[in-house]
Amino acid sequence: IESKLPQVGTTIFSVMSQLAQECEAINLGQGFPDFEPPARLREALARAVADGRNQYPPGIGVAALREQIAYKTEALYGRSTDPGTEVTVTSGATEAIFAAIAATVRAGDEVIVLDPAYDCYVPAIELQNARAVRMPLLQPEFSIDWQRLADAITPRTRMLIVNSPHNPTGAVLTADDLDRLAALLRDTSVLILSDEVYEHMVFDGALHQSMSRHPELAARSFVISSFGKTYHCTGWKIGYCVAPPALTAELRKVHQYLTFASFAPAQWALAEMLEAEPEHHLELSAFYQDKRDRFRALLADTPLVLQDVPGGYFQLVDYSAVRDVDDATFSQWLVREVGVAAVPLSPFFETPPESRLMRLCFAKNDATLEAGAARLAALN
Amino acid sequence: IESKLPQVGTTIFSVMSQLAQECEAINLGQGFPDFEPPARLREALARAVADGRNQYPPGIGVAALREQIAYKTEALYGRSTDPGTEVTVTSGATEAIFAAIAATVRAGDEVIVLDPAYDCYVPAIELQNARAVRMPLLQPEFSIDWQRLADAITPRTRMLIVNSPHNPTGAVLTADDLDRLAALLRDTSVLILSDEVYEHMVFDGALHQSMSRHPELAARSFVISSFGKTYHCTGWKIGYCVAPPALTAELRKVHQYLTFASFAPAQWALAEMLEAEPEHHLELSAFYQDKRDRFRALLADTPLVLQDVPGGYFQLVDYSAVRDVDDATFSQWLVREVGVAAVPLSPFFETPPESRLMRLCFAKNDATLEAGAARLAALN
Ligand SMILES: CSCCC(=O)C(=O)O
Ligand SMILES: CSCCC(=O)C(=O)O
Repeated sequence: IESKLPQVGTTIFSVMSQLAQECEAINLGQGFPDFEPPARLREALARAVADGRNQYPPGIGVAALREQIAYKTEALYGRSTDPGTEVTVTSGATEAIFAAIAATVRAGDEVIVLDPAYDCYVPAIELQNARAVRMPLLQPEFSIDWQRLADAITPRTRMLIVNSPHNPTGAVLTADDLDRLAALLRDTSVLILSDEVYEHMVFDGALHQSMSRHPELAARSFVISSFGKTYHCTGWKIGYCVAPPALTAELRKVHQYLTFASFAPAQWALAEMLEAEPEHHLELSAFYQDKRDRFRALLADTPLVLQDVPGGYFQLVDYSAVRDVDDATFSQWLVREVGVAAVPLSPFFETPPESRLMRLCFAKNDATLEAGAARLAALN
Repeated sequence: IESKLPQVGTTIFSVMSQLAQECEAINLGQGFPDFEPPARLREALARAVADGRNQYPPGIGVAALREQIAYKTEALYGRSTDPGTEVTVTSGATEAIFAAIAATVRAGDEVIVLDPAYDCYVPAIELQNARAVRMPLLQPEFSIDWQRLADAITPRTRMLIVNSPHNPTGAVLTADDLDRLAALLRDTSVLILSDEVYEHMVFDGALHQSMSRHPELAARSFVISSFGKTYHCTGWKIGYCVAPPALTAELRKVHQYLTFASFAPAQWALAEMLEAEPEHHLELSAFYQDKRDRFRALLADTPLVLQDVPGGYFQLVDYSAVRDVDDATFSQWLVREVGVAAVPLSPFFETPPESRLMRLCFAKNDATLEAGAARLAALN
C-alpha cells in the first residue's frame, strides 16, 4: 500500500533499546530506571488483582485515583482541582498528549513546538493535518527565545507545547518564564499543552513551575503527567491530564475512542500509594539529584563534557573530544563498540544542529552508573 | 473554546455504567463479566510484578506474548504468522482500531461501516477528515446486503470495517460470506479492519470465520482482537493486531505515538497463560453458550422477545410489548425504575431505526442473571 505516513520512522527509543539488547550494552538510552517500584505499590497492585479489580474501570479513571491526583495538584501547586470534571487518567502521558492534540488541533492550525522536543508531539500534530512550527531553544541552556516565540504566534496558532523539566535537555522553566508566557498569551486564545512528566525531578533547590501554579496559564492548559517516572514503573503506562472542565470535556471525547480506559488494578494501587505515602514524590528530587551528582563525578574521568542538568533524569554530554562525527553515527558506534547505549540528540530537532550532544539516563543503580562510566572512561 | 468535535458525546457504555452505579441497578449494559480471570493468570500477573517486569516493554509488545499470538493464529486459523513483523500488542482492541484507521485512512477517503456498528469506529474515521459510509445490515439477522455493499464501494473507498461476532447484534459471518467478500474486493485495494474481539464465543457448532482463515482476505486485513473478553479481564486493556508486514509497519508508526507500549506485567502473564492453557479459549464457546441458554430460559418469563444469538455475549431483546417508546427512553426508565441497566441499540446506528431493541450482557454469574431476569419478569 501507499503509505499515509512516509516520513514517520521508528522512534529512537525503540531503536536504541533494541540495539542495546542485541549488543548486550549497558542501556543508558531510553529513560527508565533499573530499580523497582516501591514495595507498597507492587503489593497494592497484587492486592487489587486478587480483590477483583479486573474489569473495566470508568473510562475517565478510577475515582479514588482522580481524587488523589486532584489532592496532589492542590497540595503541591495550590490549584483547587475537581476530580470529576478536571482530571482524566490515560494510558501513559503519551496517550494524554495525543488525545489533547487530536481533540483540539484542527486541520490547518499551527502548533508551536520547542526545538528540540520530545518526539511524539509533531507526529500527533501532523496527523491532524495541522502544522508544527518549531521554535529553537537558545543554546547552551535551552531556554526560550521570547522574541522569537512572540513572532511565531499567528492567528492560526492553536496550541503551544511546553515541557519542563525538558526532555531531552533537562532545562526547566522559572517562575519568571511563566509570567512572561502569561503576558505573551494574554490576548490570544492559544492553548497550552504542558508535558510535566519529570515534575518531581527538579534540582538545586528550584521548584517545579507547573502550569497549575499559575491560574492564568492553568485556565488554558492541558497539564499532563504520569506515574511511570515518579514511581519507577515506566512499564505500567498510567498517565493523566489535569485541565479546566471545558478542555477536559474535549480531551475525554477522544480518549474514550483511543483506549477507553487504562489498566484498572494499577489505578487502584496508585490511589492507595498516593494516599499512604504522599511524601514519596517530595523526596524524589533529592534522590535523583544524588544520582545526578554521582554520575557526573564518575564521568569526570571521561573525555565527555557535561552540560548542566537542572531537572529530569538525563545527562547531556558533548562528545566532540572523542570523535568528530554526527550523533547518529556516534551513538551507533558507542553501543556496538563501547557497549553503552545513549540517545543521540538529532531526532529531537527539526534540522539536526552542528552540536555533538547525546543523552545519558542516570535513573540507574550505582553499579550500572559505575559500569557505564567505566566503559565511557575507555574513550580516553 | 470552540469545540473541534461538537458532534461527539459520551459513549453509551460510560453513560449506562455510571447510571447503573447511581441507581444501584443490576448492570447488564456494558460488556464485562462479573467473575474473575483464571487464577493462573492472576497469579502470573502478581509474579510478573514481583519478578521485575515493571519497566517499558518493547513498544510493539513483549516478544513472548507476540509469539503466543502468532502460535494461536496458526493453530486456530491455519495462518502462518511472524511475531516480529505481523503482530503488535496494543492497549486494548480500541487502540488497535484507532491506530489502524489513523495510520491508513487519509483525508477525503471513505470507509464503509456496517449499520449498526460498535461506536468507536466512526469517530476515529472522522478524526482523519475521512467519511464513514454506513451500510445497513439486513434485519432481523443483521446479515450483509451484498448488492448494497458492492454499490457502496467507490474509488475513494480505503477501508471496510467488519466485526464478527458482531457487537451489538451477535451476528456472525459464515465461510460463504468470506468468499463473497474476497470476490467483491478482488480488484480493489480496499483494506479490511476486522474487529474479532468475540472470536472465542461462537455458538451452536459454528466456527469463527476469522479473516486470518482466508489468505486472500488476510493479505489486506488488520485482524484485531483482545484478551479482555477471552480471559475475563476487561480492565486489563491488552489487545493486539495481526496484519501483513506492510500493514503492521504502518500501524506501528501510529501506535508508538498513541500509547508507545501497554502495561508490561500483564503481557508477561498473558504469555504464560496462553502457553500453559491453550485449551482455555477452546472451551469458551461452550461456557458462554451455556450462559446464553440459561439466560434465555430465564427471560422466557418476561414480555421480552428474544433475538437469535449466534455469537458474542449479548442478548438482543425486543421490548415493544412493554412500552412503545424509543430505546433511549426505555433504557433510562429501565435502569431507574426496574433496576436493570441495558444498552439501547440506537447509538450504534447512523439513523436510529423504528425497532424497539436493547442489548443485555449475559457474561454474568448465574445469580446475577437470575436477579436480572427476576426484575425483568416484573415487566409483565
Ligand atoms: C516512551 S519511551 C521513551 C521514554 C522517555 O521518556 C525517554 O527516554 O525520553
Ligand atoms: C469499551 S466499553 C464497551 C465494552 C463493550 O465492548 C461493549 O459493552 O460492547
